[in-house]
Amino acid sequence: MDNKKQSSQEIYRLIKKLYPICRSITGNGVRQTLAIIQKHIPITVQEVPSGTAVFDWNIPKEWNIKDAYVKNAGGEKVIDFNKSNLHVLNYSVPVHKKVSFSELKRHLYTLPNHPDWIPYLTSYYKEDWGFCLRHRDFLQLNRQGRYEVVIDSVLEPGALTYGELYLPGRKKDEFLFSCYVCHPSLCNDNLSGVALLTFLAKALISLKRTYSYRFLFIPETIGAIAWLSRNEATIVNIKGGLVATCVGDSGNSTYKKTKNGNAIIDQVAQKVLADAGSQYTVIDFMPYGSDERQFSSPGFNLSIGSLMRTPYGRFAQYHASADDLNFIGPEYLADSWRKYLDIIFILENNAKYLNLSPKGEPQLGKKGLYGSLGSCRSDTAMEFALLWVLNFSDGQHSLLDIAVRSQLPFKQIRQAADLLLEKSLLKRLN
Amino acid sequence: MDNKKQSSQEIYRLIKKLYPICRSITGNGVRQTLAIIQKHIPITVQEVPSGTAVFDWNIPKEWNIKDAYVKNAGGEKVIDFNKSNLHVLNYSVPVHKKVSFSELKRHLYTLPNHPDWIPYLTSYYKEDWGFCLRHRDFLQLNRQGRYEVVIDSVLEPGALTYGELYLPGRKKDEFLFSCYVCHPSLCNDNLSGVALLTFLAKALISLKRTYSYRFLFIPETIGAIAWLSRNEATIVNIKGGLVATCVGDSGNSTYKKTKNGNAIIDQVAQKVLADAGSQYTVIDFMPYGSDERQFSSPGFNLSIGSLMRTPYGRFAQYHASADDLNFIGPEYLADSWRKYLDIIFILENNAKYLNLSPKGEPQLGKKGLYGSLGSCRSDTAMEFALLWVLNFSDGQHSLLDIAVRSQLPFKQIRQAADLLLEKSLLKRLN
Amino acid sequence: MDNKKQSSQEIYRLIKKLYPICRSITGNGVRQTLAIIQKHIPITVQEVPSGTAVFDWNIPKEWNIKDAYVKNAGGEKVIDFNKSNLHVLNYSVPVHKKVSFSELKRHLYTLPNHPDWIPYLTSYYKEDWGFCLRHRDFLQLNRQGRYEVVIDSVLEPGALTYGELYLPGRKKDEFLFSCYVCHPSLCNDNLSGVALLTFLAKALISLKRTYSYRFLFIPETIGAIAWLSRNEATIVNIKGGLVATCVGDSGNSTYKKTKNGNAIIDQVAQKVLADAGSQYTVIDFMPYGSDERQFSSPGFNLSIGSLMRTPYGRFAQYHASADDLNFIGPEYLADSWRKYLDIIFILENNAKYLNLSPKGEPQLGKKGLYGSLGSCRSDTAMEFALLWVLNFSDGQHSLLDIAVRSQLPFKQIRQAADLLLEKSLLKRLN
Repeated sequence: MDNKKQSSQEIYRLIKKLYPICRSITGNGVRQTLAIIQKHIPITVQEVPSGTAVFDWNIPKEWNIKDAYVKNAGGEKVIDFNKSNLHVLNYSVPVHKKVSFSELKRHLYTLPNHPDWIPYLTSYYKEDWGFCLRHRDFLQLNRQGRYEVVIDSVLEPGALTYGELYLPGRKKDEFLFSCYVCHPSLCNDNLSGVALLTFLAKALISLKRTYSYRFLFIPETIGAIAWLSRNEATIVNIKGGLVATCVGDSGNSTYKKTKNGNAIIDQVAQKVLADAGSQYTVIDFMPYGSDERQFSSPGFNLSIGSLMRTPYGRFAQYHASADDLNFIGPEYLADSWRKYLDIIFILENNAKYLNLSPKGEPQLGKKGLYGSLGSCRSDTAMEFALLWVLNFSDGQHSLLDIAVRSQLPFKQIRQAADLLLEKSLLKRLN
Repeated sequence: MDNKKQSSQEIYRLIKKLYPICRSITGNGVRQTLAIIQKHIPITVQEVPSGTAVFDWNIPKEWNIKDAYVKNAGGEKVIDFNKSNLHVLNYSVPVHKKVSFSELKRHLYTLPNHPDWIPYLTSYYKEDWGFCLRHRDFLQLNRQGRYEVVIDSVLEPGALTYGELYLPGRKKDEFLFSCYVCHPSLCNDNLSGVALLTFLAKALISLKRTYSYRFLFIPETIGAIAWLSRNEATIVNIKGGLVATCVGDSGNSTYKKTKNGNAIIDQVAQKVLADAGSQYTVIDFMPYGSDERQFSSPGFNLSIGSLMRTPYGRFAQYHASADDLNFIGPEYLADSWRKYLDIIFILENNAKYLNLSPKGEPQLGKKGLYGSLGSCRSDTAMEFALLWVLNFSDGQHSLLDIAVRSQLPFKQIRQAADLLLEKSLLKRLN
Repeated sequence: MDNKKQSSQEIYRLIKKLYPICRSITGNGVRQTLAIIQKHIPITVQEVPSGTAVFDWNIPKEWNIKDAYVKNAGGEKVIDFNKSNLHVLNYSVPVHKKVSFSELKRHLYTLPNHPDWIPYLTSYYKEDWGFCLRHRDFLQLNRQGRYEVVIDSVLEPGALTYGELYLPGRKKDEFLFSCYVCHPSLCNDNLSGVALLTFLAKALISLKRTYSYRFLFIPETIGAIAWLSRNEATIVNIKGGLVATCVGDSGNSTYKKTKNGNAIIDQVAQKVLADAGSQYTVIDFMPYGSDERQFSSPGFNLSIGSLMRTPYGRFAQYHASADDLNFIGPEYLADSWRKYLDIIFILENNAKYLNLSPKGEPQLGKKGLYGSLGSCRSDTAMEFALLWVLNFSDGQHSLLDIAVRSQLPFKQIRQAADLLLEKSLLKRLN
């Protein structure tokens, strides 16, 4: 088994391990998740106490749940949290009572168009309780019967938990990679992002880095806001970044641009997708979606894009039990992971060079860089790359600029620059 | 009958009333026209004496006509001004003589490709006389016969007449709406523009206005030049405007951009058309067409566009008797009128705001602005609008900018801003 | 026979005369070529001695050849330089020996996909010898036989030869037209360019010129580098230019943009193609192709584009014997030549003007510039041109700018400006 296959299996295996845990924006599910991630990478775990003011918000009470079910008159469990943690409206307050069908019904949620799927719903900021179930099962419920409802949850002061890993580089300038760890048994959205960033960080740890990198494993929205409020002083170092989500399905890659639209991360992400050679989609920034909306709020204006496959809300299985281990595939996870790695490759390997023989072309043939049997014109991709780098290395154009303009792969342009550097035809600028 | 229907009927009724009048660039036809408009809005009527120098031009002699006909040898009127004022070459000098067919022929104009239509032709600046007639009737004329030609017109010192209405607003900055009142019995070009501006002004009179608005009812070309020469001092206040013409036919809307191409009026007009949801066409400025060519001359460079339906010269009926009351429709007039109103709505309601909670999103849920039962993501158009306004209200982007970028209707963006203002999440900038 | 036909025949006749000569980057073939050109235009011939350092290069030894052949065991010439000078690998060192088929084979080049064509190959900078032949003939060779190989060439210190013509204008600012004279019996690439520039220069000699023009007839690459190294002081005068190549085939025109991409020569060349009315292609600059790559090297950054028909490498006959006198046509050469002339026409006739009657339109009718019998609107192309020139002659827009924006032919815009100048409505700026 080669490295590529190993990685894809590892990413998928991590998702499989995290899948059963009942996560929410607070609680032990997040802590268990972070503990598993810590087996791979040395994240620090932060706890923000309930009630802490974070900008316009307050950290909510912590939610934990042991069990939940609905029993019919015959004592049979017709809805059972142990079968799927999606059955409980996330953040449901504790309840234990007997109710009529009509009262119960007001607390039930189904997807009539997808009768075999359990929907995923939350009620973080309004105290409520409820159950989510298959529409097919809902239709079987006795409309005359009475039901025993049990939600054995706890909502009390505690903390919001998140994980963070900072990998310092030669420069203080940093790139931020963020994912959210608040969803229970859902795979593409967003255990795929969690697992991808885990293995991306793992790959980066051992590299000699030019830039610094920060990885966040946070509950969506409130976690991002909490993190921003606790790190205002150092945010200025963040030059760009990506939210990793929906990276495991079979769809093509989709890049959601930053608010700026032409930040370095936008240029790099789009070049990686262009170089990859398969179809992809680029969508403009919109201030909804995932935590890029917090990072890009006008008080921060960070250049955070998002590299996905099929975006949230564009696949039917989104926020439903069908977003399960079968919906994602190791090969798609690995493909996404390689694209993230390629983005970091460009960030680390981009630079400006100066052509030291700028008047006419240097005689590449005598340096062994050019076929001797010519038709007066170069005819291999590498010769083209050499000519592009020489012609545009005027101190103004970076290798990325040259790769974009030439439509040649960045790696080939970088390789050409290395060859020219070796032959003393180029000088690297600062 | 609801308001919308009433307006459309009113606009059409005004056109019907103005249709029979024989207008030209000077004379009593214009005065009668302005008197009828005065029954709706308080325009002032200006008279510029013949001979007055206006830039490179001089106000011509005033032209009036009582009657005109051509009689055949049998005393039968074969062309009769009383049947259509288009029959006379507009600005024909008086004539009364007997002529052979061959002499008469040199003064006759027809449309061989549209044998049932009378063409509309003028000879303002070269003294001449002539008749326009149906090609079918022309073919019936006895080529051997002699004819009595009578044009009972007067061309003598008088004045050029135009109407003007200035509606002051809180600001001196003004928008100019101009139409031309020099065409005789022709509907789309341009009684449609005259009637639309009459009812647009009527709707504006009772509004509390931020901007000032000026409405011109002028003879084309010479009227625009005369007005410009008499108002040089205050032209600097004009921030943009529109020439209203060809707004009554069944074609889609067409917006002709200003010379600038990206003036505020260009942005607003195009946004109104985009928000309206039906197909439309945008054409670039060209220095011919209607009076935008005078307003945009390099000595003034005003940003004057033109919002039409089918532009002049692009419909076969243009400058022919077929541009009659059947060629236009109340529903098209009303649709055009609403678009002009929507343009003014945006002009009046556009502003820049400042997000007062710019770090992360404010917690919209606790302010009642956000559904409590979430999927972590907003899902209604109004929630999207709230997020767009919050994210881009950084002091740089106006509501129009935000509406254009988000592709949400301006009215929804404005409504979102109002909600956020009410909740003290925004501050309006000057 | 009209002028147009004469020119096309003359250009073709010159190619026919130059076709048999065996050219290379040095040697008597170039000298003979330049001598024939001198019969048409007074080029000066420059000789740069072998060994001269020119930037990163050295002028190579001079190559001349008298004869070359391969004889089979029976004494029959199976490859004969006298039948086509393409048979010899250009710059082959002298050789006279008997070889086995297998040794011979290592020095033979064919085009298996085009078995009836002789390829064109060179070995300028690595001493080698070889023969190029039809693949069909190659297959007939006796694989057991021995062969007598003779290349009666001389490679010894001499010079690199090039031709130059400088036509001074009123301004020192100059435009450069360059072609390459190093290819042996090949027509489109590039005797077509050589002949076109000869007759372009011929047409320019007798003109009163605003700009200065320089014509180069140089060996590709090394010739351009040699010329640049000898003219560094005056290169600053070059405002743009074109490499003339592949201008004789039946394909549509192709314009390769300069590195700048929006230099004056780019605007002019594209306008000429647009005005010509037939389909054409515009391609972006890339730093390979012909000598534009040397002129555009970062030490010079000259704005040199290339106006071709089918570009090098995009026609199958490229660098093969099939690029012969039948592949090009007098009518295509003449069409290309007229486009080059039109480019010079725009360069010479472009200027900025100032509208002296900028407030409203001047009354064109009284100056005889406008039809008197109007429909209130102009209706001929010349009237449109007059209005465009008046409206945009604000000191900012050149006639070229106006022609591009109006999509009217440059010549019509220029004619309109002449008319307005005559009527004192315009003033020409500097």
